[in-house]
Amino acid sequence: MIRSEIESKFQSLQKDIISSLELVDGSGRFRYDQWQRAEGGGGVSSIIENGRILEKGGVNFSAVYGPLHPGAAKALGVETKEFYACGVSIVLHPKNPMVPIIHMNVRYFETGSTYWFGGGIDLTPHYVVKQDAAFFHQQLKNTCDAFSPHFYSEYKKWADDYFYLPHRNETRGIGGIFFDRLNNENTGLSKERLFEFVLAVGETFAPTYTFLMQKNFEHPYTETHKKWQALRRGRYVEFNLVYDRGTKFGLETGGRTESILMSLPATAAWIYDYTPETSSEEEYTLSMLKKGISWLEKN
Amino acid sequence: MIRSEIESKFQSLQKDIISSLELVDGSGRFRYDQWQRAEGGGGVSSIIENGRILEKGGVNFSAVYGPLHPGAAKALGVETKEFYACGVSIVLHPKNPMVPIIHMNVRYFETGSTYWFGGGIDLTPHYVVKQDAAFFHQQLKNTCDAFSPHFYSEYKKWADDYFYLPHRNETRGIGGIFFDRLNNENTGLSKERLFEFVLAVGETFAPTYTFLMQKNFEHPYTETHKKWQALRRGRYVEFNLVYDRGTKFGLETGGRTESILMSLPATAAWIYDYTPETSSEEEYTLSMLKKGISWLEKN
Repeated sequence: MIRSEIESKFQSLQKDIISSLELVDGSGRFRYDQWQRAEGGGGVSSIIENGRILEKGGVNFSAVYGPLHPGAAKALGVETKEFYACGVSIVLHPKNPMVPIIHMNVRYFETGSTYWFGGGIDLTPHYVVKQDAAFFHQQLKNTCDAFSPHFYSEYKKWADDYFYLPHRNETRGIGGIFFDRLNNENTGLSKERLFEFVLAVGETFAPTYTFLMQKNFEHPYTETHKKWQALRRGRYVEFNLVYDRGTKFGLETGGRTESILMSLPATAAWIYDYTPETSSEEEYTLSMLKKGISWLEKN
Repeated sequence: MIRSEIESKFQSLQKDIISSLELVDGSGRFRYDQWQRAEGGGGVSSIIENGRILEKGGVNFSAVYGPLHPGAAKALGVETKEFYACGVSIVLHPKNPMVPIIHMNVRYFETGSTYWFGGGIDLTPHYVVKQDAAFFHQQLKNTCDAFSPHFYSEYKKWADDYFYLPHRNETRGIGGIFFDRLNNENTGLSKERLFEFVLAVGETFAPTYTFLMQKNFEHPYTETHKKWQALRRGRYVEFNLVYDRGTKFGLETGGRTESILMSLPATAAWIYDYTPETSSEEEYTLSMLKKGISWLEKN
């Protein structure tokens, strides 16, 4: 399996996802920005703004290579001097607070004689709805189970630990799956099979999210819901700028800023020491932003 | 000079600044939150929201001590195991886009047999106005000049370098002064004299900012100005969450999150790859967000 094959499959994935999202959004269109990187490679960022359902987001592809900066090599724990990285990254912020924010990433990394795959999908509902959460996690579990009986539970835990804001003692949302540095050694799967897994994760994205879009985008909402959405978006901004490794790595290594920060919402808000009212929907959602919840369980 | 003396002067500074701000704001009142830190010390956060001129901000005092976490010690380049830190921190976000955002910090740090002072004031106008910038820098220069002929130019450069977003190639605003780790050895001033300098910086804050508040808060503005303000606030959020050392240090060492993140605005916005119109006020402001501008020069 060669780089060009991975690139071409990831590019098709980007296109297919964009088609599905445009179809369901119904009015928003993605605009494309092709960019090149001075040190090697480039990408195609595709951004949607002010759609019918999607307020702001991106479905980005990139394939970059060149010298690995010493700081980056140290952070990755590798000693080689060249790298190649290719992937698709998505963040979508919907207009209606009853539609969740979603993030997906699939990536391939190569340096020296080492390679690995990484990625994941996680969901950040402004309002947690158990039925939707169960649907979302079931979709991920189905995809994982086709490859290994261990993947879902392991990568679900990894997502709980990764998408977490220690300074708030909150998870970013209801998690999903997250995995990194997967190779033949630590999974027992061949490189080809791992690539199939990563592609399957990518292909799980569109049907899963467009279902949640369609189910919720006409749900009525109030000013209180919009205000809460803005506060939750504030937390999303905090996670992405303070903790997200991809964002930090990208900004530090001179990545394309506008492509990296497409993950930020159109608007966000902060209120000092805000506490939702007792027994409110907002308080319920906060109580669900914890690690270790078994979303698949009926109760 | 003992800790209790520094604490008491810093607490008076906090109170005096709050009085001045409330007087000029005319309707907003600061609310006080006293907090304690499990490992030692605590503080008083005072927050304003929805004032007449000030939309959101804080004037915080804290005095904390206890074991120095190994990570923090390494970051500070010290080997001792206990620390003491005391200071006043301010960030104010005004409602009217013609009033600038301001930040001030004065602090004292002690560990083992070492001590130092740090701090500064910097201004982030949503719209750069040369006359206001010259006034602001002149106020800082006057204060600096009373202590050393070198302080203004050195600490002005330090502010340009510190309040800078590499990923945007923009300064946060028009800078000001920034200094850290000042002690007798590197300044030639006695500890008492340095404390006087830091207090003088603190006392420069209220007259300088209330002048800018009063001069600009009734300036008419449009939806375009509000939109630009929201985008500039987005950059402020980026700086504080990605680069600001105080913020990172605070969040990493388990500081009080709500007090640290009082620096974030009530609302902020992001638009993908936004470029202001040619020859607009916004484009002019962007062109002024560069290091090394001599704001005091008449031209």
